[in-house]
Amino acid sequence: MKFRIERDFLGEVSIPADRYYGAHTARAAGNFPISGYKVPFELIQGFAFVKKAAAIVNGRLGYLEEEIVNAIVKSCDEVLEGKFKEDFIVDAFQGGAGTSTNMNVNEVIANRANEILGSEKGKYFPVHPLEHVNLHQSTNDTYPTALKIASLFLLKELSEKVAEFQGSLQKKEKEFASIVKIGRTELQEAVPITLGREFSGYADAISRDRWRIWKAMERIRILNIGGTAIGTGLAAPRDYIFEIIEVLRELTGLNISRHENPVSVTAFADDFVEVAGILDAYASNVFKIANDLRLMNMLKEIKLKPVQPGSSIMPGKVNPVIMEAATQVAIRVKANFSTVRECASHASFEIVEFMPLLAFSLIEALKLLINISEILSKHVAEIKPISEKCQEYFEKSFSLVTVMLPLIGYENATEIVKEIKEKGVKNIRDYLTQRFGMEVVEKLLSPEYLNALGYDEEELEELLDEFNT
Amino acid sequence: MKFRIERDFLGEVSIPADRYYGAHTARAAGNFPISGYKVPFELIQGFAFVKKAAAIVNGRLGYLEEEIVNAIVKSCDEVLEGKFKEDFIVDAFQGGAGTSTNMNVNEVIANRANEILGSEKGKYFPVHPLEHVNLHQSTNDTYPTALKIASLFLLKELSEKVAEFQGSLQKKEKEFASIVKIGRTELQEAVPITLGREFSGYADAISRDRWRIWKAMERIRILNIGGTAIGTGLAAPRDYIFEIIEVLRELTGLNISRHENPVSVTAFADDFVEVAGILDAYASNVFKIANDLRLMNMLKEIKLKPVQPGSSIMPGKVNPVIMEAATQVAIRVKANFSTVRECASHASFEIVEFMPLLAFSLIEALKLLINISEILSKHVAEIKPISEKCQEYFEKSFSLVTVMLPLIGYENATEIVKEIKEKGVKNIRDYLTQRFGMEVVEKLLSPEYLNALGYDEEELEELLDEFNT
Amino acid sequence: MKFRIERDFLGEVSIPADRYYGAHTARAAGNFPISGYKVPFELIQGFAFVKKAAAIVNGRLGYLEEEIVNAIVKSCDEVLEGKFKEDFIVDAFQGGAGTSTNMNVNEVIANRANEILGSEKGKYFPVHPLEHVNLHQSTNDTYPTALKIASLFLLKELSEKVAEFQGSLQKKEKEFASIVKIGRTELQEAVPITLGREFSGYADAISRDRWRIWKAMERIRILNIGGTAIGTGLAAPRDYIFEIIEVLRELTGLNISRHENPVSVTAFADDFVEVAGILDAYASNVFKIANDLRLMNMLKEIKLKPVQPGSSIMPGKVNPVIMEAATQVAIRVKANFSTVRECASHASFEIVEFMPLLAFSLIEALKLLINISEILSKHVAEIKPISEKCQEYFEKSFSLVTVMLPLIGYENATEIVKEIKEKGVKNIRDYLTQRFGMEVVEKLLSPEYLNALGYDEEELEELLDEFNT
Amino acid sequence: MKFRIERDFLGEVSIPADRYYGAHTARAAGNFPISGYKVPFELIQGFAFVKKAAAIVNGRLGYLEEEIVNAIVKSCDEVLEGKFKEDFIVDAFQGGAGTSTNMNVNEVIANRANEILGSEKGKYFPVHPLEHVNLHQSTNDTYPTALKIASLFLLKELSEKVAEFQGSLQKKEKEFASIVKIGRTELQEAVPITLGREFSGYADAISRDRWRIWKAMERIRILNIGGTAIGTGLAAPRDYIFEIIEVLRELTGLNISRHENPVSVTAFADDFVEVAGILDAYASNVFKIANDLRLMNMLKEIKLKPVQPGSSIMPGKVNPVIMEAATQVAIRVKANFSTVRECASHASFEIVEFMPLLAFSLIEALKLLINISEILSKHVAEIKPISEKCQEYFEKSFSLVTVMLPLIGYENATEIVKEIKEKGVKNIRDYLTQRFGMEVVEKLLSPEYLNALGYDEEELEELLDEFNT
Repeated sequence: MKFRIERDFLGEVSIPADRYYGAHTARAAGNFPISGYKVPFELIQGFAFVKKAAAIVNGRLGYLEEEIVNAIVKSCDEVLEGKFKEDFIVDAFQGGAGTSTNMNVNEVIANRANEILGSEKGKYFPVHPLEHVNLHQSTNDTYPTALKIASLFLLKELSEKVAEFQGSLQKKEKEFASIVKIGRTELQEAVPITLGREFSGYADAISRDRWRIWKAMERIRILNIGGTAIGTGLAAPRDYIFEIIEVLRELTGLNISRHENPVSVTAFADDFVEVAGILDAYASNVFKIANDLRLMNMLKEIKLKPVQPGSSIMPGKVNPVIMEAATQVAIRVKANFSTVRECASHASFEIVEFMPLLAFSLIEALKLLINISEILSKHVAEIKPISEKCQEYFEKSFSLVTVMLPLIGYENATEIVKEIKEKGVKNIRDYLTQRFGMEVVEKLLSPEYLNALGYDEEELEELLDEFNT
Repeated sequence: MKFRIERDFLGEVSIPADRYYGAHTARAAGNFPISGYKVPFELIQGFAFVKKAAAIVNGRLGYLEEEIVNAIVKSCDEVLEGKFKEDFIVDAFQGGAGTSTNMNVNEVIANRANEILGSEKGKYFPVHPLEHVNLHQSTNDTYPTALKIASLFLLKELSEKVAEFQGSLQKKEKEFASIVKIGRTELQEAVPITLGREFSGYADAISRDRWRIWKAMERIRILNIGGTAIGTGLAAPRDYIFEIIEVLRELTGLNISRHENPVSVTAFADDFVEVAGILDAYASNVFKIANDLRLMNMLKEIKLKPVQPGSSIMPGKVNPVIMEAATQVAIRVKANFSTVRECASHASFEIVEFMPLLAFSLIEALKLLINISEILSKHVAEIKPISEKCQEYFEKSFSLVTVMLPLIGYENATEIVKEIKEKGVKNIRDYLTQRFGMEVVEKLLSPEYLNALGYDEEELEELLDEFNT
Repeated sequence: MKFRIERDFLGEVSIPADRYYGAHTARAAGNFPISGYKVPFELIQGFAFVKKAAAIVNGRLGYLEEEIVNAIVKSCDEVLEGKFKEDFIVDAFQGGAGTSTNMNVNEVIANRANEILGSEKGKYFPVHPLEHVNLHQSTNDTYPTALKIASLFLLKELSEKVAEFQGSLQKKEKEFASIVKIGRTELQEAVPITLGREFSGYADAISRDRWRIWKAMERIRILNIGGTAIGTGLAAPRDYIFEIIEVLRELTGLNISRHENPVSVTAFADDFVEVAGILDAYASNVFKIANDLRLMNMLKEIKLKPVQPGSSIMPGKVNPVIMEAATQVAIRVKANFSTVRECASHASFEIVEFMPLLAFSLIEALKLLINISEILSKHVAEIKPISEKCQEYFEKSFSLVTVMLPLIGYENATEIVKEIKEKGVKNIRDYLTQRFGMEVVEKLLSPEYLNALGYDEEELEELLDEFNT
Repeated sequence: MKFRIERDFLGEVSIPADRYYGAHTARAAGNFPISGYKVPFELIQGFAFVKKAAAIVNGRLGYLEEEIVNAIVKSCDEVLEGKFKEDFIVDAFQGGAGTSTNMNVNEVIANRANEILGSEKGKYFPVHPLEHVNLHQSTNDTYPTALKIASLFLLKELSEKVAEFQGSLQKKEKEFASIVKIGRTELQEAVPITLGREFSGYADAISRDRWRIWKAMERIRILNIGGTAIGTGLAAPRDYIFEIIEVLRELTGLNISRHENPVSVTAFADDFVEVAGILDAYASNVFKIANDLRLMNMLKEIKLKPVQPGSSIMPGKVNPVIMEAATQVAIRVKANFSTVRECASHASFEIVEFMPLLAFSLIEALKLLINISEILSKHVAEIKPISEKCQEYFEKSFSLVTVMLPLIGYENATEIVKEIKEKGVKNIRDYLTQRFGMEVVEKLLSPEYLNALGYDEEELEELLDEFNT
């Protein structure tokens, strides 16, 4: 393999001749053989947008010549398309507050731009990674900006997947609307409900999450780009600072804007903490729904679609593997969001030095949520109810007596329950029918009555009349 | 001590004759000798509001006689005032999804109401804890409702304290506006800033938190009251369900409303998870600010007010104890919010059975944040700058060269830094003055220039002209 | 109320005349109105042991007069007995690395000792809190030492409670030894087991925890007492350093010793992190067992003892409230242990400044575990099996076919399962009996066979012979 | 691309003709497009050891023919060498309790073994993945066993790296033994220490971690292999169960043994929780040391080796990037260990269904710790002290007065500190020398005196004599 030599203030660095990265990247790759994970491509894309916007604005304002701008823009477009993926080699768990990722991008773009302009890799002429590609920028404004752009795109995708998941649950809500079953509280039979109503509860929770994801996007659409090293915009011309956000908005199509106090958002990562916190609600909901569906499947009230044989020793066994995967994702995502909080908490003075781990954890979590949402949408769509089993639990449950409360009061109901237990009554529905008459019981245990909010006083009057006669 | 005997379906229970609680409470107190913590009084007050509202509505709709309503209302008012505190004896870490807290409230109110009506404790006549005080209610709608009411009042208080904290930081922002210092990134000297600008960063972060607290209140102002056992409103008349929220709004003065899908918010606690997540951002900000101020105090850029002698062995030592307390609060609060998330995640089927721990953790966290915010407001107000030390770090820092970037570019600046290091220059400001002239340097290192966003191109032109001559 | 005035280098402090605490305590109480929690009494006792030991050694070596030693010793004994509890008023969430707790103890003991010697509170003569009570000590060696003593006593108590819990599970292991049931994996029916064997699994897990608790005690029995401010023993005579540990061992009856590198254990709290980590295993086991028992109770394989009525709206409902409490304790304890880890991680330079929160979280967790262990022992003892239900699930489960594997192999077994499903066979046991003969099936499904480890090849031979004929 | 068709009880699956995996793997790969992470190769190796051992034992006991055993053994060896890496395609975040990983291994080995024996992929004859490769095994005993084997190898490697790290710190301990500096507590100057003594504190903490890693290995060297589906050994011959552990010990060279109660360790993952908890202590120590070194570097008491340029905008800036990376690793590792705890807590009934996430999190954490330990060893070796700066802080610190305590007592020392502050004394050492004489001060501030444990009473006598004259 052929190598070229590059120099920085620490000395010489040798680099494979055909690589687009440069001295800083090579040093950083050597310094951080830690996780084996690459910096997420979504973040690299966020950087490419920033570099492109900066070049355009610097060109317009006369800080860069047109030729150089064009070469940088073309290089950025190639990065956005996914070229040079193997040139972004710095470990995701790098120290240095993300400088090495910024420099990796600067170097790749500079070397590619020079190539476009007929120069050579490693010459950094006519395009220099710092003097041109990074002009009027710092890691400390480009990194949070690139991460916010990456996150906004991912949140958009998540929003769509969550909408599908909600839709999938809503279909089941309708499909299961008339399947009466026993509701459970504290893992004990409680009062009747319909299976559809339970799914409406799920769908509604997920609709809250959709709305949350929109709110999360609101939280991070305000950027510190232009703030340079510590948010004061030091060494950047004012016109550039005002224009770059406009260009970035156009290039990304995202509804982004400039923060009024870039010093504050450079020194703090609270926006990301808030996003993590908002999405934690989604993770908690996924955890709870997956657990409920596993339990209903165990109780045979529903049947999850078998997607693979379940055991290497027990023939015919099928497991709720998708729900188990969803549970695991929820656990991991919550851990990642805790990591986001820790990274943000440990910011010191003017920047958030643990951005690389924050970014990695956030993007990993977002991608996990996107993927599991899509899987859940499809899997929920295949759920089959087992009405007979729902019916069976329902009829055998002494909790049905609770439905009688409006007619007979708590103390009487308690007496009936005692009697049922003493006599060992098996089918509570039949028992109630015997005692209170077919009409009353049919009415009170109908899906319509159970799905209605509370009881209608007049209807109950009528029932009471009947019941008392 | 004298005792009275009460009965439930599990048998007899003996209760001190002068206590207002009853059989359920006594059993629960015996069942849960766990943490020694009482249920927070704020939650009991939330319950008292609910019981009062229910009694009023049930009276209006003819489900309770006026005399009974009046007695219940009076009892609730006494609970709200803080009477009977020693009668709420069930451990905060109770099992049972909060039923024991609901029953404790029901029993105390019933016994007190009967007393008011001339009856005796333990008779439960004419007022019965379940038939009257709990009429048309369940633990599963009253508990989340009471917790949301409690949380809303606490968030309101927190909002005020946080506003004061922000105000306190803003005063320092102005006071320190012209104290130039060296900014630091990654615990290394970076580029100049003013001490005031740093405090503006803090103030702005806290202003985001204020706004967040308002958002958090939005998240939990929608209630499932009327939903009874599982959110379907089973055994509650429809008119009651619609009216109770109106009465509750009047009684509390809070902007609360009824949830459209009470089944969903009875089965899920995602609203609380979201609140926890939003407030985590505040905890992270407190952690970061407290840490920064501890470090600045160590570096003697500021002086935190001495509030107590610091050591039992080192004479004259003073420590940043308030900041240490704030850090600890931030750590604890984050742990509590994780607990909220876990409790919510582990909800099963129609309710959230781990509400008692969720409630305790949330209220503990809110009270810790209220108290520390108040303490921080006062403590920040007493911070003194040490301008000479700020100046000293500033003048000695080779990072000042960065300010020259717009005039000389990155590569030249690098050369100058190298020269400074080689020559062992001590006072960089003087060196730069010698090299670039007094006017240029004074201009570029003035608080006005450093506080401005980026540089003005025309001004720089002028400087450049000067500089080039 | 009457007051006395005390002085320190920050000025005057006014103190209620009858209180034993002094100026430092009063300042600290005013500085930290944070959590409302007092410093745990167990920690105060730990301090009293340290103060007593120090006084004795200082007396022996001639650094304190006998009269003063005696007065201090008597005061310490009174503190140990629980006197002056209302004089330990500093908030548990105090900053200052625990100095305020140390000083509170010093002041109470000094004031009480002076009282014993006929002097007055607030005079600090002849006994001075620093010159005498704190002689040759610092917060930084006494605090970790007192906490380790407190923790050792609590761990000892925990060990006993856990032993009882294990015993309780073992009784059930024997009692349920012959109740055959279907085992479940991934919430699906798997292969047969006995209920007793499941409880043996629980008992064994808890026995591992017992052993762990012993190991945890090993971890923290090595103390930094004598190290004073930063572990170097500065300002303490060498003889004192060597003797105090001996006296402390005698006074406490604990197997404690002196650390070889007190600098290291003053600067690090890794010992506590390790203890937290070890006990996390117990918390996880409690969580898992409580969840299993809740599920078995739901499936009606066992019946948890009803300990209180379960609902304020559903008559006759009984919930697994003790298991829910245990789950909540496990969640809280895990959060507390995370807090211990965070406090330890944030130590800086020579000490662990967040000891107060570390200590509070650790002791809270230990006490919660002690209490819940005792409750669980009793509750587990009352578990009743529901053999018929176990039998019912067992006989209906196609998983029984797995038992035939050694006779027929995986592929044949798969065929049989397919057939069973197609034919809709209800009682699998009967079906297998029909197919493989009574003797084979009785043998293979007997508790003895199921409880044995693997199968005996010869026995199987015989069965195979029979089966093939 | 050519495909072959395989069948299972759910239907047909199409597989690229040249791949070694089979139907189950293909289904699972399709079911879990979640994280994009592969199952860690270390775990696959653990499985290969298990499969090899099982084949050998099954051969010896006559359950498998020699030819088949040989082919399986050869296949396992190839897997161990790293062949077929691209055939292990199931996502690391799979549901199904690890069945898909077990099956992936079974299928690859079976297909490869058949190929060796001249048969074809997809035929599963003469070697069948379940009937032969998986014979007498279940996922539920092989998975924890494979994970323990993988963890033991990783812990061994970690142990070596940690030993190097300790060695590196110990070298600095010696090298810096006579550099006197001011110790700091609560980020305030406290009492004198030597830089070497601080490093001895670090080295000792890391030596405790070494010891802990050995203990962690103890925790997981006891295996449930042979327990099959739920730990009872169902469908496995007893001889096999006893022999496999012996063979596994030989093959791996690890000191492993069989658990007495495999039911318990199949149902619980508390061993892994304990390992996580023990290693958390190491993570906390790394966090603390990295933070201290960053702070000392900021204070210029030491100089961390520059390993890369630090900024894209600030010329000459160098950051403590390795320490930042270490901090991030510590944060991530703690999050992973929390995940291990959650996965273990959520085990239900007879197995731990969330093993895949547990395994991934544990192995990721172990590898991160191995890598960062190696990096830290090297980086610590390059630390340079800045003695003059240490000296400067030291001489200016009024905390030096504490050293006089044994001579003058706390109250007198306080007076001196007050005087120093009032007079604005700059060089405290000089001041003390003036006041107490050169000999006393030189003695008390010498590295020897500061490094000794406490003071020697006789030596002090002499000093006192001198001092009093």
